[in-house]
Amino acid sequence: MVNGIERPLDLLNNAKGKEVLVYLKGDKQVVGTLLAFDIHINLVLDNVREMQNNETKRNLGLAFLRGDTIIYISPASTALKKE
Amino acid sequence: MVNGIERPLDLLNNAKGKEVLVYLKGDKQVVGTLLAFDIHINLVLDNVREMQNNETKRNLGLAFLRGDTIIYISPASTALKKE
Amino acid sequence: MVNGIERPLDLLNNAKGKEVLVYLKGDKQVVGTLLAFDIHINLVLDNVREMQNNETKRNLGLAFLRGDTIIYISPASTALKKE
Amino acid sequence: MVNGIERPLDLLNNAKGKEVLVYLKGDKQVVGTLLAFDIHINLVLDNVREMQNNETKRNLGLAFLRGDTIIYISPASTALKKE
Amino acid sequence: MVNGIERPLDLLNNAKGKEVLVYLKGDKQVVGTLLAFDIHINLVLDNVREMQNNETKRNLGLAFLRGDTIIYISPASTALKKE
Amino acid sequence: MVNGIERPLDLLNNAKGKEVLVYLKGDKQVVGTLLAFDIHINLVLDNVREMQNNETKRNLGLAFLRGDTIIYISPASTALKKE
Amino acid sequence: MVNGIERPLDLLNNAKGKEVLVYLKGDKQVVGTLLAFDIHINLVLDNVREMQNNETKRNLGLAFLRGDTIIYISPASTALKKE
Repeated sequence: MVNGIERPLDLLNNAKGKEVLVYLKGDKQVVGTLLAFDIHINLVLDNVREMQNNETKRNLGLAFLRGDTIIYISPASTALKKE
Repeated sequence: MVNGIERPLDLLNNAKGKEVLVYLKGDKQVVGTLLAFDIHINLVLDNVREMQNNETKRNLGLAFLRGDTIIYISPASTALKKE
Repeated sequence: MVNGIERPLDLLNNAKGKEVLVYLKGDKQVVGTLLAFDIHINLVLDNVREMQNNETKRNLGLAFLRGDTIIYISPASTALKKE
Repeated sequence: MVNGIERPLDLLNNAKGKEVLVYLKGDKQVVGTLLAFDIHINLVLDNVREMQNNETKRNLGLAFLRGDTIIYISPASTALKKE
Repeated sequence: MVNGIERPLDLLNNAKGKEVLVYLKGDKQVVGTLLAFDIHINLVLDNVREMQNNETKRNLGLAFLRGDTIIYISPASTALKKE
Repeated sequence: MVNGIERPLDLLNNAKGKEVLVYLKGDKQVVGTLLAFDIHINLVLDNVREMQNNETKRNLGLAFLRGDTIIYISPASTALKKE
Repeated sequence: MVNGIERPLDLLNNAKGKEVLVYLKGDKQVVGTLLAFDIHINLVLDNVREMQNNETKRNLGLAFLRGDTIIYISPASTALKKE
């Protein structure tokens, strides 16, 4: 499952088109489909939902997230499978 | 609808001339028409309104927003459509 | 009115010699006439007033503002016209 | 045991494929298997668990951690052996 | 009075040898004679006084101020004239 | 004792293989043997102990510390000798 | 007394071998003899004392201080002479 991850950005490349959980500074969490990223870890997600206590707080549709506010990014399939 | 987004800045390019919701550090939100942006994610918006609890708190007209205070940018049409 | 803004710095160039509202981190607001700026968004303003609740708290005359403390800059004419 | 560590990144290189404890800003701790890192100290971990008071708070599976939120990284074998 | 200010650093150049008010992050204010500055806005001031509520809290003599803690710098003559 | 310190990194070079006290942002202190450092002041320490009120709070064994969370580094022999 | 200060680093150069007061972010103050500095304003001090309310809180001996935590540096002779 983790084949082909030699550099950190490989994880993001593998996650394109899939749902990811993004944890932001200030305890903010969003879930969405990863469409694009760059070396600054700026992301574009689609079908974005801000989450709070595992419930959707706000639907954003498309969103551009600035990389420097991100703490971690986890493919939702692996994050949710084990929760 | 998300065609043509290969890099994060493509989203901003597609949103030019349209309304965007910008979420800033310190829980500040503004809505306005995106006129210009650069690689630092500095933005110029027109018809800017500072929002609080979905109500307009202040009208700013034109404004230059520094990129490093931005958490996310969402085209208002997709953000509002689903809210 | 927004003609000629292709890049964010165009807004600042158009605002030279005019009054701008500058919103700083830490909820500080100043109003003054924009004399100069650079690519770091360092500004020089004249006739600077620190504002609080729409009242002048302190007159500073000339001031150099470091760019990295700035959240947004709005030409005062458009900001005030709609307020 | 510490042979071959001449530069800080050597420690991360030695820890590949092993469990590490990562302490993040904001008192957040995660444990996981180190798969990849880069010079920004961005990490990819597998089998990630957020820890609180030595108990697992959340299972994340795979995760990309941005380097600038990291305070320290300790190979879990040495950290746990002595605790 | 504001002749010759085409770039922000021109203000600092004009203020050399004169008293300036420096407002620092964390609500700290110092007044002193500007001796030198560089492009990082590092400053050397002489006859430095830390100010609190318009009163001198501490005399520092000479001091080197790191640029990244500075919010604004105002020539004291213009700041004090209008206060 | 302080011979040979012409540049700040010389202190770290002299301290290799010796115990150092590292004071981190957020009032965190660790003590350990300095194995390696780089120009970002990233450190690798061995026999790391998190300290609180002069008592060991946690043993970490080996650890990689990111430079940007460090306030100061003091060779423990000089720090402890005088305490 | 202030001859020869044309650039901010000249002050640090003049202060080598002399006692300086260093004010750090988070209201921390240290006094020590300046041995070395670099362009990042990283410092090495000897005979370092952490100060609180003009009293010595802790003796550190030699210490490396990271530049980005520093607010100001004042040669102690001028700071203390006037206090």
